[in-house]
Amino acid sequence: MKSPRISQRANDMPPSPIRKLVPFADAAKKKGIKIYHLNIGQPDIPTPPEFMDAIRNYSEEVLAYGHSKGSQQYLSGLAEYYRKKGIQVEEKDIQVTTGGSEAIIFAMICTAAVGDEIIVFEPFYTNYNGFAMMADVKLVPVTLQAESGFHLPQKERIEEKITSRTRGILICSPNNPTGTLYTREEMEMIARISQEHDLFVLSDEVYREFVYEGEHTSIMHVQGISDRAIILDSVSKRYSACGARIGCMVSKNQEVIGAALRMGQARLCSPSIEQAGAASALEIGEDYFEAMAAEYKRRRDTVCEELEKIPGAMCLKPSGAFYVMAKLPVKDIEDFSQWMLTDFNLDGETTMIAPGPGFYATPGKGQDEARIAYVLNVDDLKKAMRIIGRGIETYNSRR
Amino acid sequence: MKSPRISQRANDMPPSPIRKLVPFADAAKKKGIKIYHLNIGQPDIPTPPEFMDAIRNYSEEVLAYGHSKGSQQYLSGLAEYYRKKGIQVEEKDIQVTTGGSEAIIFAMICTAAVGDEIIVFEPFYTNYNGFAMMADVKLVPVTLQAESGFHLPQKERIEEKITSRTRGILICSPNNPTGTLYTREEMEMIARISQEHDLFVLSDEVYREFVYEGEHTSIMHVQGISDRAIILDSVSKRYSACGARIGCMVSKNQEVIGAALRMGQARLCSPSIEQAGAASALEIGEDYFEAMAAEYKRRRDTVCEELEKIPGAMCLKPSGAFYVMAKLPVKDIEDFSQWMLTDFNLDGETTMIAPGPGFYATPGKGQDEARIAYVLNVDDLKKAMRIIGRGIETYNSRR
Repeated sequence: MKSPRISQRANDMPPSPIRKLVPFADAAKKKGIKIYHLNIGQPDIPTPPEFMDAIRNYSEEVLAYGHSKGSQQYLSGLAEYYRKKGIQVEEKDIQVTTGGSEAIIFAMICTAAVGDEIIVFEPFYTNYNGFAMMADVKLVPVTLQAESGFHLPQKERIEEKITSRTRGILICSPNNPTGTLYTREEMEMIARISQEHDLFVLSDEVYREFVYEGEHTSIMHVQGISDRAIILDSVSKRYSACGARIGCMVSKNQEVIGAALRMGQARLCSPSIEQAGAASALEIGEDYFEAMAAEYKRRRDTVCEELEKIPGAMCLKPSGAFYVMAKLPVKDIEDFSQWMLTDFNLDGETTMIAPGPGFYATPGKGQDEARIAYVLNVDDLKKAMRIIGRGIETYNSRR
Repeated sequence: MKSPRISQRANDMPPSPIRKLVPFADAAKKKGIKIYHLNIGQPDIPTPPEFMDAIRNYSEEVLAYGHSKGSQQYLSGLAEYYRKKGIQVEEKDIQVTTGGSEAIIFAMICTAAVGDEIIVFEPFYTNYNGFAMMADVKLVPVTLQAESGFHLPQKERIEEKITSRTRGILICSPNNPTGTLYTREEMEMIARISQEHDLFVLSDEVYREFVYEGEHTSIMHVQGISDRAIILDSVSKRYSACGARIGCMVSKNQEVIGAALRMGQARLCSPSIEQAGAASALEIGEDYFEAMAAEYKRRRDTVCEELEKIPGAMCLKPSGAFYVMAKLPVKDIEDFSQWMLTDFNLDGETTMIAPGPGFYATPGKGQDEARIAYVLNVDDLKKAMRIIGRGIETYNSRR
C-alpha cells in the first residue's frame, strides 16, 4: 500500500530561498572554508543587557501561560513606545505575537478569505510567500524597478492590480530586501488607494529604527485611515533579538484586534520570558539606536562603495533597513550563489548571498539580483564584498 | 465611509471557551473574592531547575535565529527521549515547533487541503476548533459518552463519518478534556481505520507522562502505520513550562516532515532560549515523573471523591492527564459557570471551571458537563470542589 499524500498546499509550500543554500554552506564549512554570511538578516550586534538581564533574572517559580493578548507589562510599555513614535495607540489596540511572522499570518487571515488577494510590491520579503500559502491568500505582485531605487510606481500602476477579490495592500518600509524608505507621499498614496478601494493596509515596520536618510513614515502617521491600517512589528532587528520570537500587531480597528486575540487564544500565549526581556528593552534610550544606525550607515556605505568597484554591478544607495538588492553581472544568480559555496573560495573564504528570484512572485524576475544583508562589521564586509567581486570575475571567465 | 470588514473566517474564529470567562473572574477578584482556577490546565508544579537554569545561564551574546528545524542539541536529545519511550525515531523525523499549538496547525495544513475533513472525538481540546478555522479544515466530530468513560466507540461508528474529503483522524491520549487513556486495542483500531481508508493519524500525546493506571500507547507503538502517524507533542505540561512555547511534530513520513520544515522556515525558528531549557530538561530522571504522577493521582482521587459527594454529579475515574469531564446537575453549565463568578462565593472564595459545550463541535452537547483541571494541591482542591457543591445547591434552589 502506498503512503498517504500530503495536501497540495503543503506540497506547494516554498522552501525558504534564503535558507535553501544552507546545505551547500554546511558542506563548504566542513571542507574548512570560512563563510561570510550576507544571506540572512541576522545582525551581529549584541542583544542589549536590558533584554538579556530581564531573561536571566526571570524569577517566577512556574513558567506559566501568559495572557493571550500579551503580558500587561509589555502591552503597556509598547503603547508608550508607539506614542513616542507619534503613533497614537493604547494597549487595547495591540496584540502581542510570536515574532513578526505570526503578526503577518494573523493579519492575512483577518483581512482576507481563502483565495482573496493582497497586493505586494516585489521584490518583497520572501517569507510573505510562505505565510500566504499557509493563510491561503493570493499575493498579487506589483513589480518595482532597481533603476528607480525600488520606489513605488504611479497610483494607476497599483490600482490596475485591484480586483473584486483584493482585500489589502502589504507594504514594508524601510524595505526588506531593497532598503528603500518610502516617502510620506508614497505612504499617503497607499492610504488614498486603500480608502478609494475599501482595502486594508498591512504595514511591516520592523526596520523603523534603521533609517539613515530621511524620516520614517508609519502608516499610522497618515490621517484618516485608522480603521484600515495594521502595523506588523517585531523586536528581532530592533534589539538584535531574532531568536526571541516576539512581535506584535497594532490596529485601531477593534474587529481586527479582536479576531487576532481569538487566534492568540487558540495558541495560548507568546513566550513569557522573552516578553519580559522585550518589555525591559523598551527602556533603552535613543542613543542606543543612534549608535546602531551610525554603525549600519557605515556598513551600507561600505557595501555600496565595494559594489561600485564591481564592473557591471548596480545599486542605488538605500535609505534604511540593512539590505541592498544589488544587480550583479551574472546571468543566473541562483547558479552563481550556489557556485560561490561549492566551487569558489579566496584564500579559504567565500561569501553567501540570497539569490534575487526568491524575493519575486513573478517567475523570471530577479535573475541578476541578490539581496546583500550588511550585518557584519566594516572590515568583514569589505572582505566579503571583494570575494563577491573576484567570484564574479572567475565565474564569468569559466567558459 | 464605513470601516472595512474583516474576513468571514476571522469573524467566525471562536473565542476560547476556557478563557472567555476571564473578565468575570477579573471582576470577582476586584471585589476581593479568591478564585480557585480549575478552568485552565496550568499546573502549579515548579518548573524544574534543569529547565530554568539553562535559561538563566544562556550565555550567547546575540540572541540569534536558530535553525528552522530546531536546535541541533534539542533535536538530538528529543530523538533519544522518544527512543527511550519505545518510539523509534531519528532527528530527521522531528520538527521542533512553537508550542504544541503550532504542531497541530502544521499537521492540519500538511494533511488536509482547504475544506478537507479531519475526524475528532468530542469532547476534544477546545483549541482544535481555532486551529481548524485558521487552517481552513473541517472538524467532523464523533461523540463519545461519559457513561462509557469517553472511550472510543465501535469501528463502524467512526467509519460512518468518513467521506471522500476525510484526510485524517485526530486523537489525544491521555485525553484533554476527559482524562481517558486509550487502550492499545483502541489505538490499533484507529491505525486499522487509517490504513483501510488511506488517512493520516494526528496523535496529540502531550500528556504521555501523566498516566495513573495502565500503560500509555503511542500511535508510533503500533506497527505498520509509520507512514501515516504524526505525533504532536509539547513540553508545556511535561515540565510545567507552559509559557515556554516549545513543542514538536514527529513523523517517519518525510513528506510530512519536509513540508513542516518549509512552514518552519517561513516563521524562521522557535524561541532559542527555551529550546536550551527544554534540551536541558531532557536530563530529568524518571523519579521526577513518578513523583509528579503520584501527586496528580492523589489530586484526581480527591476530585473524584468530592464529585461523588455532590448529588447528581457523575464522573468515571480517568486514567491520565489532569482533567475530568464531569457531569454536573445543572441545566445550563455556561450560565452556572458564569454565575459562580458573578453571584456566588463561600466565605469570599469561589471556583472557576470550564463549561462543557466549548469542548464539543456538535451544538447542544455538553450543557451539563464541565472540565475540571486538577492542577491545585489536595487541600485547595477539596475546598474548590466543596465550593462547587455548595454552588450547585444554591444555584438550583434559587427559584
